Amino acid sequence: MDSPINSFAELRTLLAELPGPDAGAAEAARQREAVLTKPPGALGRLEEIAAWMAMWQGRHPPSVDRPRICVFAGNHGVAARGVSAFPADVTAQMVQNFQAGGAAVNQLAGIVDAELRVLELALDHPTVDFTTGPALTEQECLNAFAYGMASVEPGLDLVAVGEMGIANTTAAAAICHTLYGGGPADWTGPGTGVTGAALANKAAVVGRAVELHRAVTTDEPLQTLRCLGGHEIAAMAGAIIGARLLRIPVLLDGYVCGAAAAALHAAESASLDHCLVSHRSAEPAHGWLAELLGKEPLFDLGMRLGEASGAALAIGLVRAAVACHTGMASFGEAGVATASPAA
Amino acid sequence: MDSPINSFAELRTLLAELPGPDAGAAEAARQREAVLTKPPGALGRLEEIAAWMAMWQGRHPPSVDRPRICVFAGNHGVAARGVSAFPADVTAQMVQNFQAGGAAVNQLAGIVDAELRVLELALDHPTVDFTTGPALTEQECLNAFAYGMASVEPGLDLVAVGEMGIANTTAAAAICHTLYGGGPADWTGPGTGVTGAALANKAAVVGRAVELHRAVTTDEPLQTLRCLGGHEIAAMAGAIIGARLLRIPVLLDGYVCGAAAAALHAAESASLDHCLVSHRSAEPAHGWLAELLGKEPLFDLGMRLGEASGAALAIGLVRAAVACHTGMASFGEAGVATASPAA
Repeated sequence: MDSPINSFAELRTLLAELPGPDAGAAEAARQREAVLTKPPGALGRLEEIAAWMAMWQGRHPPSVDRPRICVFAGNHGVAARGVSAFPADVTAQMVQNFQAGGAAVNQLAGIVDAELRVLELALDHPTVDFTTGPALTEQECLNAFAYGMASVEPGLDLVAVGEMGIANTTAAAAICHTLYGGGPADWTGPGTGVTGAALANKAAVVGRAVELHRAVTTDEPLQTLRCLGGHEIAAMAGAIIGARLLRIPVLLDGYVCGAAAAALHAAESASLDHCLVSHRSAEPAHGWLAELLGKEPLFDLGMRLGEASGAALAIGLVRAAVACHTGMASFGEAGVATASPAA
Repeated sequence: MDSPINSFAELRTLLAELPGPDAGAAEAARQREAVLTKPPGALGRLEEIAAWMAMWQGRHPPSVDRPRICVFAGNHGVAARGVSAFPADVTAQMVQNFQAGGAAVNQLAGIVDAELRVLELALDHPTVDFTTGPALTEQECLNAFAYGMASVEPGLDLVAVGEMGIANTTAAAAICHTLYGGGPADWTGPGTGVTGAALANKAAVVGRAVELHRAVTTDEPLQTLRCLGGHEIAAMAGAIIGARLLRIPVLLDGYVCGAAAAALHAAESASLDHCLVSHRSAEPAHGWLAELLGKEPLFDLGMRLGEASGAALAIGLVRAAVACHTGMASFGEAGVATASPAA
């Protein structure tokens, strides 16, 4: 993207004109898959992943030579409402921890051999408490979106997207409740670990915020992102779209990343076609959210950490899928007999 | 094991005296987990895996420095009964493919950085067709078991166990049907891809075989392994027990590996405590089998290839779990605030 996006109207136009899948690469993947030394379909979703990589990279064979993990960090005014088990200072402290190599995602990046980028968004300037007003102005939301887009560069071949931000599962719940209805408690979970009365308070905060912005957000997913989201949430949406424009497949992390994706999906249903949901988070509403996005998570290990941890782990699965697809011998090359016609 | 096992009676004694978990290492893992920079429990099953590694390696911190994938290959007389989509020659052809680096498990071993051992068991001497007699003699079964035990050496710190053998999902179904009851169709699945009348024939073969050996196999899991198993199936059981004796945690692959494990579990319920079921195979009965073994598979990607492919992929998850557990900073080290008492 060379020209900046100056308004939600321009962003809507961009979303309506996203590049589609590469049918030729998908067909080449299908043809190769059929001759590899295994019963047809025996690698299950690894075969699906290899085809998805080819289709959205727009080439065959697909590659995983330059994967990047993008962790966006932002602060939230609503943290003052007692919605998190941790104080708001922890966002900046965890960013320091990422930079020092001490967090979970640092270890995971090492295991899956991926570059890790930690992208701070104005940690000293939290969003407005959205129980009192819109979290972001349109310009702030677009700035964060553009920052997210810029985090994805040509030459990358896979991007894992995630976040860090105390109170941002509250924002995610408010976005999902606005987009999908139901009651606030349906979308509100423990996040970092709130339970009992604190969880009831969190759901009440979500309900109050959603009602406050209803007039502006109804049928307006980008307004939902602005009024109830956050800097890092808008930036994740930007990274997802920036990757699409550069033909880079995207692994989505858990609930907060899913809420950013959901706003895009509601604005333009094809906008997540180049994305997989890496894992089903233990945050209770994430499973429903993934279903609403039409995406079956690759795995469920009961993780609920954020910081792109699930998406980072999924890079290993994508590496495995692509390695099998590109490295295996064909029946002909290996001199292995194919299935007998009798079967 | 320095002394050979000369009879099933001696093997039963061995199974009754297996070493247990290391409570001290487990406690050390629990204590460290509690201070790492994340909300308690936020890494879900990765935390469970790290504790399991410590407990069964008998030390803290646990390591994944020398993981090995063992793929046992054997041939089955029952292949003549039209139970597989592939001819029996494919077992040897796939062993060649493993040795040449062209199979799925070769690519997966590379991705998870594990040593791959392919262990052939008398491919020119298939088991007896178990619809006409016992698949193996007691001595043959013990020889294969010992070969499996010997495939696991001191110094390894994780073993993934799997197999290759045309017709061996038929053997697995016969073992499970004998051990757990139900009907033959409950335990018989498509394997490499048999459907319709061929699948009905496969179930009928399983039912006939189970009835033939019922008098010998009832309440005798080792006789079940002998009469209805195979060289590679007995060898997998041996590898599982060999690893236990050396304090090496084990990742079980899919349905056929699970059937070998099930015979051990039926003989001595504690014998799989050092094992995880890596994945839920697409072979329909594997999910039930994992439940009967009391083990929740780590993931389900719809794989049904065998050749230790699911267990190999799970090595990456164990690496990730151990890397987080050992490499993350504590709250104190990182200067990150812990959860507030109010939450």
